[in-house]
Amino acid sequence: NPNADEIHGFKCYPSVRDVPDEIDVAIIAVPSKIVPEVMEDCAKKGVKGVVIVSSGFSEEGEKGAEIERKVIDIARRSGILIFGPNTTGIMNTETGFITSFAPLRRIKKGNISIVAQTGLFLGVMMEMIASHNPGIGFSKLVGMGNKIDVQDHEVLNYLISDKDTKVIGMYVEGFRNGRAFFEVAKKSEKPIVIFKSGRSEYGKKAAMSHTASLGGRDEIFSAVCKQANLIRVFSFDELLNVSKALAMQPLPSGKRVAVIHYTGSGCVQAADAVYFSGLKLAELSEKTKKRIREVTPEWHQVNNPLDIWPMVEYYGMKPYNVSTEAMLEDENVDSIVVAVWCSAIWKGYMPEFDKLKEFKKPIYFVAEGPRDEVHTLRMEYENNGFPVFPNVITAIEVLGKVTKYSARKNRSF
Amino acid sequence: NPNADEIHGFKCYPSVRDVPDEIDVAIIAVPSKIVPEVMEDCAKKGVKGVVIVSSGFSEEGEKGAEIERKVIDIARRSGILIFGPNTTGIMNTETGFITSFAPLRRIKKGNISIVAQTGLFLGVMMEMIASHNPGIGFSKLVGMGNKIDVQDHEVLNYLISDKDTKVIGMYVEGFRNGRAFFEVAKKSEKPIVIFKSGRSEYGKKAAMSHTASLGGRDEIFSAVCKQANLIRVFSFDELLNVSKALAMQPLPSGKRVAVIHYTGSGCVQAADAVYFSGLKLAELSEKTKKRIREVTPEWHQVNNPLDIWPMVEYYGMKPYNVSTEAMLEDENVDSIVVAVWCSAIWKGYMPEFDKLKEFKKPIYFVAEGPRDEVHTLRMEYENNGFPVFPNVITAIEVLGKVTKYSARKNRSF
Repeated sequence: NPNADEIHGFKCYPSVRDVPDEIDVAIIAVPSKIVPEVMEDCAKKGVKGVVIVSSGFSEEGEKGAEIERKVIDIARRSGILIFGPNTTGIMNTETGFITSFAPLRRIKKGNISIVAQTGLFLGVMMEMIASHNPGIGFSKLVGMGNKIDVQDHEVLNYLISDKDTKVIGMYVEGFRNGRAFFEVAKKSEKPIVIFKSGRSEYGKKAAMSHTASLGGRDEIFSAVCKQANLIRVFSFDELLNVSKALAMQPLPSGKRVAVIHYTGSGCVQAADAVYFSGLKLAELSEKTKKRIREVTPEWHQVNNPLDIWPMVEYYGMKPYNVSTEAMLEDENVDSIVVAVWCSAIWKGYMPEFDKLKEFKKPIYFVAEGPRDEVHTLRMEYENNGFPVFPNVITAIEVLGKVTKYSARKNRSF
Repeated sequence: NPNADEIHGFKCYPSVRDVPDEIDVAIIAVPSKIVPEVMEDCAKKGVKGVVIVSSGFSEEGEKGAEIERKVIDIARRSGILIFGPNTTGIMNTETGFITSFAPLRRIKKGNISIVAQTGLFLGVMMEMIASHNPGIGFSKLVGMGNKIDVQDHEVLNYLISDKDTKVIGMYVEGFRNGRAFFEVAKKSEKPIVIFKSGRSEYGKKAAMSHTASLGGRDEIFSAVCKQANLIRVFSFDELLNVSKALAMQPLPSGKRVAVIHYTGSGCVQAADAVYFSGLKLAELSEKTKKRIREVTPEWHQVNNPLDIWPMVEYYGMKPYNVSTEAMLEDENVDSIVVAVWCSAIWKGYMPEFDKLKEFKKPIYFVAEGPRDEVHTLRMEYENNGFPVFPNVITAIEVLGKVTKYSARKNRSF
C-alpha cells in the first residue's frame, strides 16, 4: 500500500518489489485496472502464484477483457500461476492456509474438498455450513472465479491424488477445457459430485456476466456425467447432502433399502421415494421379521418401510435398536434409512454409534422436530459420523444417487 | 374411564352414558377392539360427532376391517359423523377447538387451512412449523385418518366457503370418492395445494397399511390436477412453501420475473430456475435501468437477475431499496424475488414493508446465512407478510407453481 506504513499492525510496503522476503503467493485485491501493474511487480519479484480477488474483467465487457488479456500475457511471460480473477481463492484446513477476505467461522477438518467457480463458497456458503452443519468436515476449498489460468481439471487432478480428500464437490458455471476435464474426471477413483448452473439459455447469459463462462450444451454435459460417472446434483443443498453422505458412510453394495420411520405417512412417502430414486424396498428375511415382532404390539404389522411409533409407544427406545440392528444384519438389506423425531419432551433415539459402524453398511438418518432439538441431535449424529437429512424423501434421493454411483463404479447390480 | 374418578383434576365417568351434559363431539382414544362398544354408548347418549384417534382398523388387516365395519354400521344407524379412525382430528384456531392429544406450541392464527390424511400434521408437523416458521398462520387443521365416514370432498366443501380460509393445503394418500372430490375441487375459487403420496407401487402398498387407502393411478390424478387447477407439490416442505406464498402475497398477473441476488452465482442459479419453472426473465425498461444505474459502480452491469453485492459495497443498503422499488414500478415486471444475505456482522436488508405492499405485485424473499440470524430475519419478514425461502431456486420454483395457477385461473397469459 503506497499510502500507509502499517494497517491493523501489519507492516505495509509501497510495492511488492519492496518486500524483503521471498513471496510464494500474493493475493491481489486492487481495482481491476491496476492489476496488470501489480502483476508486473510480482513478475519482477519472482512471485510463484497469485490469487486475484478483484472483479471487473471479461465478465464486465470489452474494457475488462482487455485488462484480462494483459494479465494473462504477464503470467505467460513470467510463469506465475493465477487463481481467478473474481474469486476469494483457496483454503486448506490442514495447513491453515487461507486467501479469503471473508470472516469465516471455524470449519471442521475433514475429507470433503470443494472446487467452486464462485467466491461465495469461501464466504457465505462456508459460514452457512459451519453454522447449520458443524459436523461436516472439509480439507481443501478452492474458488476458481473466471479461470483465466488455472483450470478445473488441474485442480481436480491434484485432489484426486490428495491423501486427505475422499470426496470432491464441484460448482461449475462453464468449462474452458471440457475435454481435459472429462479425461481427468474419468480416471478418478474418488466420487465427484457436481452442480453445474448455466444450464438454460437464461442461465448461460447470466453466467457470461458473472464469470464470463461459456455454458455449453446441457445434453453434452449430461453425457459426460454418465460416462465419467459424475454424480450430478441441482442445488448447493444437494451438493452438500450427497458429499456428506459419501464422506461419512460406506458405499452401498446393492439397491435394497430398509426404512424405519416414526410415522405411517413418512413410510408412504419413503416408499414412493425409494421407487422414484431407482432403489428397491428390501424383502426382510423371516429371521429379521421375527426379531422385530418381539418388540411390536400384536395388532401392528411389521413391514418395510417400518412404522415404528406404535412399537415405541409400547416398548420405548428398544424397537429402534432391535429393528436397526436386525435390518443391518439381514443379508437382503444393502442400506438403511432411519427417521427420528425429537422434541423438548422426547429427546429422540440416540444409537450406539460404534456398534452401527461394525455392520459396514450405509446408514442415513432423518431428524425432524423443533429447530433447536433437531440441531442438537444432528450435531451429535454427524460428529459421530452419521449423516442426518431434513426429511425422508431427501435422504432417499441422496441414497439413490450414491447407490447409482456405486453400481457404475463397481460395474455391478 | 371405568377405573378412575379423576385424572389430572378432570372428573371421570365409567361410560359416556353417565356424563350428565349433552355431548357434541367425543374423542375416542381406546384400543380398537373396544371402539364399537364406546360408539354404541355414544349413539345412546346422542353424541353428534366423534373423532376416533385409535388405530388398528382396516390398515392392520382383516381383524381390524371387521371392527371397522361394526363402527360404520353404528354410525349409519345413529347418524353420528366420524373423523378417522387413525387420526388426531381437528383444530380450529379461531375458536380454540382442538382434539389432538399432541402437546402443541402456540400456532399463529391465519388464513391457511390444512386437510391431511395423517395425524402427524396435528402433532409433529405443527410443532415443526411453529418452531421453524412462526410467521405462518393457520385457520383450520383437519386430520382425516382412514376416512371411513367423513371424506375429503366434504371437508373441502366446508373450507371453500369458510370466510377465514384463503388457501387450502392437502396431504392425501388416497381418495374414497375421487369423482366427488374432483367436482368440489373444480368449483373452488380458492387455491388448493395438494401433496399426494402413494404414487408408486411401493407407495400404494405402504398407504394400504397406513390408512387403508387405495392409491389409484397417478396419471389419472395428474389429469385431475390439471383440470381442476390444483397445485400439485411433492413434499411437506413444498406444501408449506407454496401455501405461505399464496397466503401472504397477491397472485402474479404475468410470467415476467425480476430477480435481485447478493451473489453472481445466485443470479446464474436464479436464471436457470426461471427458465425451468416456465417463467420469463423480465426485460427491464430503460427507466428502471437508469434508476438502478444511479446506485451502481460504473464498471458493474445492470442485468436481470441483478447481482447487487458490488452495488451494496459502494452504496450500502440504498441499492436494495432503489432496485426493488424500480423493478416493482416497471410495467414489464409481474413479480420479483429478492435474495438477502445476513450474518452476525451484516444484519441484512430490512425493507419498508408497508411501502412494498402498495405495489400489489408478489414479492418473494430469500434469506441465507447462519441459522440464528436467518431465523430472526425470516420471522421479521414473515410477520410482516412477506414469505421467505431458504434459497433462490426454491423461491422461483414456488413462484412458478403459483404463476401457473394464476394463469389457469384467469384463463390468461
